[in-house]
Amino acid sequence: MRDVYVAGVGMIPFGKFPEARLADMGARAALAAIKDSDIPPERIAVAWCGHTRAGTVAGQRILAELGLTGIEIVNCDNACASGATAFRGVWHALAAGFYDCGLVLGVEHMTQNVKGVIPPREDDLEGALGRVMPSHYAFLAQGHMARYGTTREQMAKVSVKSHRNGALNPYAQYRKPVTIEEVLASRVISDPLTLLECCPTGDGAAAAVLTATAPGRALKVKVRASVLLSGKARQPDYDNTSSPLTVHASRLAYEQAGIGPGDVDVCECHDAFSIAELVHYENLGFCRPGEGGRFIAEGRSEIGGLVAVNPSGGLLSKGHPLGATGVAQIAEIVWQLRGEAGQRQHPDARIGLAHVMGGAVTGIDSGACAIHILEACQ
Amino acid sequence: MRDVYVAGVGMIPFGKFPEARLADMGARAALAAIKDSDIPPERIAVAWCGHTRAGTVAGQRILAELGLTGIEIVNCDNACASGATAFRGVWHALAAGFYDCGLVLGVEHMTQNVKGVIPPREDDLEGALGRVMPSHYAFLAQGHMARYGTTREQMAKVSVKSHRNGALNPYAQYRKPVTIEEVLASRVISDPLTLLECCPTGDGAAAAVLTATAPGRALKVKVRASVLLSGKARQPDYDNTSSPLTVHASRLAYEQAGIGPGDVDVCECHDAFSIAELVHYENLGFCRPGEGGRFIAEGRSEIGGLVAVNPSGGLLSKGHPLGATGVAQIAEIVWQLRGEAGQRQHPDARIGLAHVMGGAVTGIDSGACAIHILEACQ
Repeated sequence: MRDVYVAGVGMIPFGKFPEARLADMGARAALAAIKDSDIPPERIAVAWCGHTRAGTVAGQRILAELGLTGIEIVNCDNACASGATAFRGVWHALAAGFYDCGLVLGVEHMTQNVKGVIPPREDDLEGALGRVMPSHYAFLAQGHMARYGTTREQMAKVSVKSHRNGALNPYAQYRKPVTIEEVLASRVISDPLTLLECCPTGDGAAAAVLTATAPGRALKVKVRASVLLSGKARQPDYDNTSSPLTVHASRLAYEQAGIGPGDVDVCECHDAFSIAELVHYENLGFCRPGEGGRFIAEGRSEIGGLVAVNPSGGLLSKGHPLGATGVAQIAEIVWQLRGEAGQRQHPDARIGLAHVMGGAVTGIDSGACAIHILEACQ
Repeated sequence: MRDVYVAGVGMIPFGKFPEARLADMGARAALAAIKDSDIPPERIAVAWCGHTRAGTVAGQRILAELGLTGIEIVNCDNACASGATAFRGVWHALAAGFYDCGLVLGVEHMTQNVKGVIPPREDDLEGALGRVMPSHYAFLAQGHMARYGTTREQMAKVSVKSHRNGALNPYAQYRKPVTIEEVLASRVISDPLTLLECCPTGDGAAAAVLTATAPGRALKVKVRASVLLSGKARQPDYDNTSSPLTVHASRLAYEQAGIGPGDVDVCECHDAFSIAELVHYENLGFCRPGEGGRFIAEGRSEIGGLVAVNPSGGLLSKGHPLGATGVAQIAEIVWQLRGEAGQRQHPDARIGLAHVMGGAVTGIDSGACAIHILEACQ
């Protein structure tokens, strides 16, 4: 297995662009990543495009706009984990020695395809009974509050932190700080979660160029671990206060990287709803089960804290165009590891972790969970 | 790179099943492949699901019906090449040593998602001007007739052969032989192509189990080559009588397998329209450019001929549920190589080739072309 490096990343600002062309959004992100990598585009021999609703052969259509044709292209869909699945696909092809250089693209045009809450599929029995995404996470919140005494203020603080970080990120969909009072006073979407505790609908694209060989410039970011797993059917003792899938996937990723949770400096995690981030502090091993609320209350997940979680603003503030999210997380981690994150820069980030979950299958923890660990090269 | 074997295949009969459940169709095909492989399902560590319209995390939803959860699952979409892309993905993961055993699934529920001709996307300028799939292939037919003197009777003979073979295949959507006169007399869809020269709309699923290690039973079919490429932008001298992408991909596949076109005993190729098969005889190197018409006229692509092309009935007769097609092609090749193809069995098949194309991107030969070469083990 060869070492693989992230040579360049790029994205377009997330937002609502119903009039934009999908191919244009994707091409702009890809171009930004290629420019950032300083790698000649003709060296790119494989590309993966992650999306959920961009239509068939979307990657080919988008990359044709840049003249990137005649190469291997795979389009993948693992719901919100589509972009991370694409990153893993290109990493895999390079690590295995199939190719030397590849492009990852994540893209989504939600304003053209989804109005409000993502509707359940016809065969989703729990969804039909009301367990759409906000309700799914509301159950998680109610369970966590009941079992561990987590408070609404602690959950609201996730949104406050995300929006404060997002305000410093020129790529974020929402760049306005909010207060705990504002979060708690915004309208309830699914009790106890309020509007400001739910990720928005949005459009966007993000890209990365990976290489397994030395290009012209020094390689600054190495991939240390890549894990992609699907959820297991719920056990009879399923407690609804954690994501066993994230626990399992993160342990495999730490093992692959040869590090522990305490080594992670920056983390982009799947904060689709405020409660999710608290639960993932625990699942990713940053604190013990039940301590997520205290973890944020004590400021441990702030940019200057123990581990900077979602310095980009996360899904809550940067936005969540499904297929783009996993790649945008990688972009933020890379900028942090290269010391290029501007006002939201971690003072000395060496190890970064990106965590994303995709889909919800009836009776299953989640459709997919992808975790990548990146390291700044010495 | 490790050797990878197809340990088992399975499919459901193709047809129009608007009332069926997608998950049930996929699960039945997967179960058939697992049973055929004689490999314990708990050894399956990775699965790919190819489809174009099955919805997000379709693979997870389908495989959960069989209890296949907690593993790496990738959903891919390369239009008609989606199933072949899935096959390549699992092959890749096993060949590289990531896993020892994996499942490939291709599925499509077209009757629930497409009425008649697949409509062009909003950003498909040529499609908006009328170049939908039947027209695209009609251009190919007109060009081939004008340049090489190919006749309507030669094209019709492709449909006659496919339906004769399909009549012998219990999995085929159409099992009724047709005559040249019937083909030519059926209504014109896009001049010169008639209804019986166009593949039908249909539903279906197919699956394969791959392994890189020795299971309980002897391994009978080895993967000798896997190629996936996207089309190049048209050149100024683009002649519209061939598929340069197929030419390029097949040359790479022959090189990988260390064989030539003359070594291929059975071939499942992308005969979405009658003219396509004639052109692909040429593109795949079975005859020289312009000789496709004569090739079928002389019976060289019959089951008893030089190379048995589409012994399953092909897309024209077996049917073409987009995502399922690439995997169903593999199933037919495996049955032929194992001598289990019943009345449509090649007398002594040692080498089989599966060829499929996906999508059509404005100004591009095609979105994707996948070629796999399989060999019967001694």
